[in-house]
Amino acid sequence: MFIMHTPSELKSLFLDYMQQHNFQLAPKELFEPVDYILQLGGKRLRPVLLLMSHNLYQTEVDSALSAAYAYEIFHNFSLVHDDIMDEAPLRRGKATIHQKYDINTGILSGDVMLIYAYKYLLETPDKNLVPELMTLFSKVAAEVCIGQQYDMNFETSDSITIAAYLQMIEYKTASLIAGALKTGALLAGAPAEDLYHLYEFGRNLGIAFQLQDDILDTYGNAATFGKRIGGDIVQNKKTYLVLKAMQLANNTQKQVLENLLSTYPKEEEAKIATVVDIFDALDIKAIASEKKDEYHQKAIAHLALVKVVEERKIHLQEIAKELLERVK
Amino acid sequence: MFIMHTPSELKSLFLDYMQQHNFQLAPKELFEPVDYILQLGGKRLRPVLLLMSHNLYQTEVDSALSAAYAYEIFHNFSLVHDDIMDEAPLRRGKATIHQKYDINTGILSGDVMLIYAYKYLLETPDKNLVPELMTLFSKVAAEVCIGQQYDMNFETSDSITIAAYLQMIEYKTASLIAGALKTGALLAGAPAEDLYHLYEFGRNLGIAFQLQDDILDTYGNAATFGKRIGGDIVQNKKTYLVLKAMQLANNTQKQVLENLLSTYPKEEEAKIATVVDIFDALDIKAIASEKKDEYHQKAIAHLALVKVVEERKIHLQEIAKELLERVK
Repeated sequence: MFIMHTPSELKSLFLDYMQQHNFQLAPKELFEPVDYILQLGGKRLRPVLLLMSHNLYQTEVDSALSAAYAYEIFHNFSLVHDDIMDEAPLRRGKATIHQKYDINTGILSGDVMLIYAYKYLLETPDKNLVPELMTLFSKVAAEVCIGQQYDMNFETSDSITIAAYLQMIEYKTASLIAGALKTGALLAGAPAEDLYHLYEFGRNLGIAFQLQDDILDTYGNAATFGKRIGGDIVQNKKTYLVLKAMQLANNTQKQVLENLLSTYPKEEEAKIATVVDIFDALDIKAIASEKKDEYHQKAIAHLALVKVVEERKIHLQEIAKELLERVK
Repeated sequence: MFIMHTPSELKSLFLDYMQQHNFQLAPKELFEPVDYILQLGGKRLRPVLLLMSHNLYQTEVDSALSAAYAYEIFHNFSLVHDDIMDEAPLRRGKATIHQKYDINTGILSGDVMLIYAYKYLLETPDKNLVPELMTLFSKVAAEVCIGQQYDMNFETSDSITIAAYLQMIEYKTASLIAGALKTGALLAGAPAEDLYHLYEFGRNLGIAFQLQDDILDTYGNAATFGKRIGGDIVQNKKTYLVLKAMQLANNTQKQVLENLLSTYPKEEEAKIATVVDIFDALDIKAIASEKKDEYHQKAIAHLALVKVVEERKIHLQEIAKELLERVK
């Protein structure tokens, strides 16, 4: 008999697995930071999506847990190294590894996490699947690095196209989500067409998800967003909102934006207010929301083409909706 | 008909493969540093040993080239990240990546190299071998990280046992060499006993190799060693020579060593001379050489137990001898 698991059931099974496969290993100087970052919590989005995708086809969950862990470890590895590169002191409200320990610890513990991600992927019971799982994993892992490189390049570039920005967030954020969804289906022996549509579901969802994040950073509710509203503006981040505004701005607006978003004035609230005024004059919030909805709808369209009975897709449809309404 | 290839023939085939699979990829900010470090040269020891081990059983070389490349890429990845951690400005006489570019480039280009090492391992033509190759690779890769961690721990520890030191160099240096040798044989379909003996050959050889390095750093010929003689002493590195001397020293000698090797006196040549005098009084050079020979002989004994006709082992025997007589 086929049983559908709720996302929270799958998350709970995944957390049990994590607990049983923790990093309380020697030497502690290397592995304690790994344990620390993995215990910081978070939505466990990638492993849960992987298990949900698997559950489209199979009741049994166990055989997908090690791959789910691989994706979660990889995601956290990328956070550890990105946080060093971005000099971020906090992650999920707690000290980042390089802050709590030091940069060398962040580098080396990150490295060993990347290796352990592969190690857990290798734990997949059906060894015949290993080459294909690994090929997919390596592809999306390389894309995450390329995305991070683009992101760093953008910091010093003043000619970023919207297409280049969308490519960056696809690589940096969406590829891993897409890879997790495809992996769950691969493990369940899904047909090639479904693998394609689940990957595309994740890819489009991931892009929508990042566009949402860009919007919330400026237009979110301070109480529920959890980060400072306007943080991207203060840091001169070239988000979709900024790039679109620069495209639509008249000469005066363009000059104000260029000036404000290349300097760090002391009056941060005034800077935010001026930039938001220009955004509002150009209707940026609506334009960005439309773009986000476009990707969201593409995602849903791909999910619709997955050849399993509709009832089984309910949780994926819901989680997609929730993600885009989410309050971080 | 079976053909034995010389190490230089194998190196040349490997260099051709590298050339055809270079990292002239986009974005250049990420991949140009990878190309740079891989083009710096070096002995290509790990890939050549892998191909030699493969050639014990098979004439054909091509099917082992991608795995050989994986080991070379991984080795260079570990150099890139270690050089950041050790703040090393030079590698093979040229600027290290973090020195030529910056630390973030070193971190991210290193990360993508680790992923590409797995990617190349996946290129192995016989996909049935992939899980076993990957498991071995992940094991030795994790050991390299653990070895680096031990090495960093030792910098701030004053109670390092000789056993712990030997464990550190086994992980940091010998495991990857052992893994390369076993991988070559695995690819050639060698029997399990041979895999074991080739791994042990490499493991013991790698330890001997590092002990040789410790000896040459103090007792080598300045003209041929290529590095400053006494560099380890100046930097207070806890090599086998130092640990053995501390074990054998009388109280006066111990105090002098402890004092000199925990400070950075301006008179570096005087520091080196005093430490070498104590080494000489304790016969450290001979003791260390004996230890090195012990591992070398263990290595040779394992090679002798590999069940292929003796003529085929000539090049591995020779390269082991050369390595230990080598002038860096």
